[in-house]
Amino acid sequence: MPRTLSREVAECIGESVTIKGWLHNVRSLGGVVFALVRDRTGLAQTVTEDAADADLLRGLGSESVVSISGRVAREPRAPGGVEVRIGRIEVISRVEDALPVQINKASISAGLETQLSHRAVSLRSPRARAIFRVQHEVAMSFAEFLAGQGFVRIHTPKLVPAAAEGGADVFEVDYFGRPVYLAQSPQLYKQMLVGVHERVFEIAPAYRAEKHDTARHTNEFTSLDLEMGFIESHEDVMDVENAWLCHLAETLRERCEEEFGVLGARLPEVQERIPRVRLSEAQNAIARCEGQPDLDPEGERLASAWAHDEFGCEWLFVTHYGVEKRPFYTMPDPSAPHLTRSFDLLFRGWEITTGGQRLHRIEDYEAKLRAIGVDQDGYDFYLSTFRYGMPPHGGLGAGLERLTARLLELRNVREANLFPRDRTRVSP
Amino acid sequence: MPRTLSREVAECIGESVTIKGWLHNVRSLGGVVFALVRDRTGLAQTVTEDAADADLLRGLGSESVVSISGRVAREPRAPGGVEVRIGRIEVISRVEDALPVQINKASISAGLETQLSHRAVSLRSPRARAIFRVQHEVAMSFAEFLAGQGFVRIHTPKLVPAAAEGGADVFEVDYFGRPVYLAQSPQLYKQMLVGVHERVFEIAPAYRAEKHDTARHTNEFTSLDLEMGFIESHEDVMDVENAWLCHLAETLRERCEEEFGVLGARLPEVQERIPRVRLSEAQNAIARCEGQPDLDPEGERLASAWAHDEFGCEWLFVTHYGVEKRPFYTMPDPSAPHLTRSFDLLFRGWEITTGGQRLHRIEDYEAKLRAIGVDQDGYDFYLSTFRYGMPPHGGLGAGLERLTARLLELRNVREANLFPRDRTRVSP
Repeated sequence: MPRTLSREVAECIGESVTIKGWLHNVRSLGGVVFALVRDRTGLAQTVTEDAADADLLRGLGSESVVSISGRVAREPRAPGGVEVRIGRIEVISRVEDALPVQINKASISAGLETQLSHRAVSLRSPRARAIFRVQHEVAMSFAEFLAGQGFVRIHTPKLVPAAAEGGADVFEVDYFGRPVYLAQSPQLYKQMLVGVHERVFEIAPAYRAEKHDTARHTNEFTSLDLEMGFIESHEDVMDVENAWLCHLAETLRERCEEEFGVLGARLPEVQERIPRVRLSEAQNAIARCEGQPDLDPEGERLASAWAHDEFGCEWLFVTHYGVEKRPFYTMPDPSAPHLTRSFDLLFRGWEITTGGQRLHRIEDYEAKLRAIGVDQDGYDFYLSTFRYGMPPHGGLGAGLERLTARLLELRNVREANLFPRDRTRVSP
Repeated sequence: MPRTLSREVAECIGESVTIKGWLHNVRSLGGVVFALVRDRTGLAQTVTEDAADADLLRGLGSESVVSISGRVAREPRAPGGVEVRIGRIEVISRVEDALPVQINKASISAGLETQLSHRAVSLRSPRARAIFRVQHEVAMSFAEFLAGQGFVRIHTPKLVPAAAEGGADVFEVDYFGRPVYLAQSPQLYKQMLVGVHERVFEIAPAYRAEKHDTARHTNEFTSLDLEMGFIESHEDVMDVENAWLCHLAETLRERCEEEFGVLGARLPEVQERIPRVRLSEAQNAIARCEGQPDLDPEGERLASAWAHDEFGCEWLFVTHYGVEKRPFYTMPDPSAPHLTRSFDLLFRGWEITTGGQRLHRIEDYEAKLRAIGVDQDGYDFYLSTFRYGMPPHGGLGAGLERLTARLLELRNVREANLFPRDRTRVSP
């Protein structure tokens, strides 16, 4: 008999069906045994009073894979309001051992480190499945929205000859006996490709060999990147991100209400125009980091809370960061050259995007690299782009895991990373 | 004045427009100067008889970025049947140097190595732009089709503790003083995630530290991967790929006719059921590699040509490769255990996909690893998946660049890789 998915069972009342999935939970009430079967669409309740079948189910470990056939009957107390009265059970894969972490409760009692160590099992919990279902929609929405705006999807190398974001925090790879580095971002390449397609985007891993160990950082993350030519300023880049976030909020409302429910998170509201304030204005408002070129994490938290009070908005663009805190390719503000045409996007207390306008004239790059004492030779492949005609352009990078974590109000970005890598963890 | 894209100019006859882009080509005919301006949507012809403007255009190097305003007039000999009679020229970015490779002719005369060394410029050629526009559609189509079939997009780590595809061909990374490896494929992780979402896919870089230097290999490539649970056999996996390829062919016909034209390539036809033959049958038909567990590259070329003659089909699934030529996780054929439930997809002479059914019982993995003398310890994180309940499952991996190259009948896979990495090249 063809397989019926758990979500489809409610449409089959009175019919015989075969469901297949993992044994999520088994309960005995006297001689009656209830078994919840989990598949990719959710849970289905099955029930038997047959002594042999009941014994079989009681003897199977959680997560055993089964195929259960039976007739569908109305049962208001079961998921979807129906249950499958068991006719036949086939055990596809029997689990003998107790699970290393319990996953059939509403929340997981094991700590995060234990969950991460037993990721193959802990990811099966309803909570984790909901997180990555939402992450899927975030990534799909980014690609679909941008493709609709004329952006071309690119795949740039992660093995690179030079550091894009400066200095020391790169991982070194032994490439047939010579050192190359893991890309910190696709920055240099996506700018080069503005010369080709004008508008490009990428969804790909990025690497930072930073030693800090915080709830917001991992050493490998998925970067959502875009870059676009013929802009007037960084404002155009914020416009695109704002429009995408509106599209994303709509997608999540349509497709992920259930997942947000599982996680007890609020579906995000995105204003058609997210407030944009200068760094100095934000610093004054929160009376922190005043006169400095940047916000610290506590400043980001306070600025985000302030935006909520002041504008009723969970999102806030902060612009005009100090030139010393932005990478060499950042466009200075012509009217105040110690500031930059740059922005961060804050959301529920965290910085989730960094972007801005870039330099586009070769002479500006040469002057900048001289001023900061960086040798041009390593960047020749990149600088030639600007020797052969580039328009004003800009872009942004956003961490997929960070955005997912804030959307779902998770406390640690690792919860939104399938197999996180940090200073002490490269397994599983 | 807001910018008009070159594709939109034909709709603006009699109106004043401003176009922005790169100076693709400038021709003088007596006192008349024609300048072709390239933007992300194509080429627009501009023309002037004004002496000062003509001098300005003649003095600008190719690829200078300009903004040109003027009135649109019918001109049957120009692209799109219209031209812009120049009123005003603004130079946004002036190019002083001659280009390192010519890109404004129908084909590039420079050799591939020269093109790759000057990638920031050579990628701007109509030919290269068409290749990566098609590649964009291939990747988008893969994601969209699979999402529609209930597959969840995943992002698995590329820094891994163990080699997925066996042995020596891995790049080593210095990870805070200890060695880890760049993932050869997401194989182990996508299988683990079948336990979570049943159906998963990924588009991400993969690494092979192989020293061979052929027209079909690079050391970093983009892998299109999928994995799915509750299958009967490898046939189900071929069904999904076949359906995707039908979807892709339709997408390319709708959106990329022009790009195929630029490259002189034939739009692919995909049969609703691509022929499936056993390896031994293919070997007999081409009288090559008979009795061996695999095809060599020449055998793949011959088998592909044979399929074209025999079935009128450019695609061919070859199944049942020898067990010694397939990775440890491959499911043997129950009726002939020296063969496997595996397949390759051949297209226009090249292997572009490898897939199959995997083992799903822990005892089968343990026996297999013992038999081939591999220590289980390094794979513990992976093996635990099979200890806690896994359904029959299978999947495939396809190289995005290889598929793009064959679709467009390119001779070298590097042409379909934005910034290829091979044994001698890690720059640009």
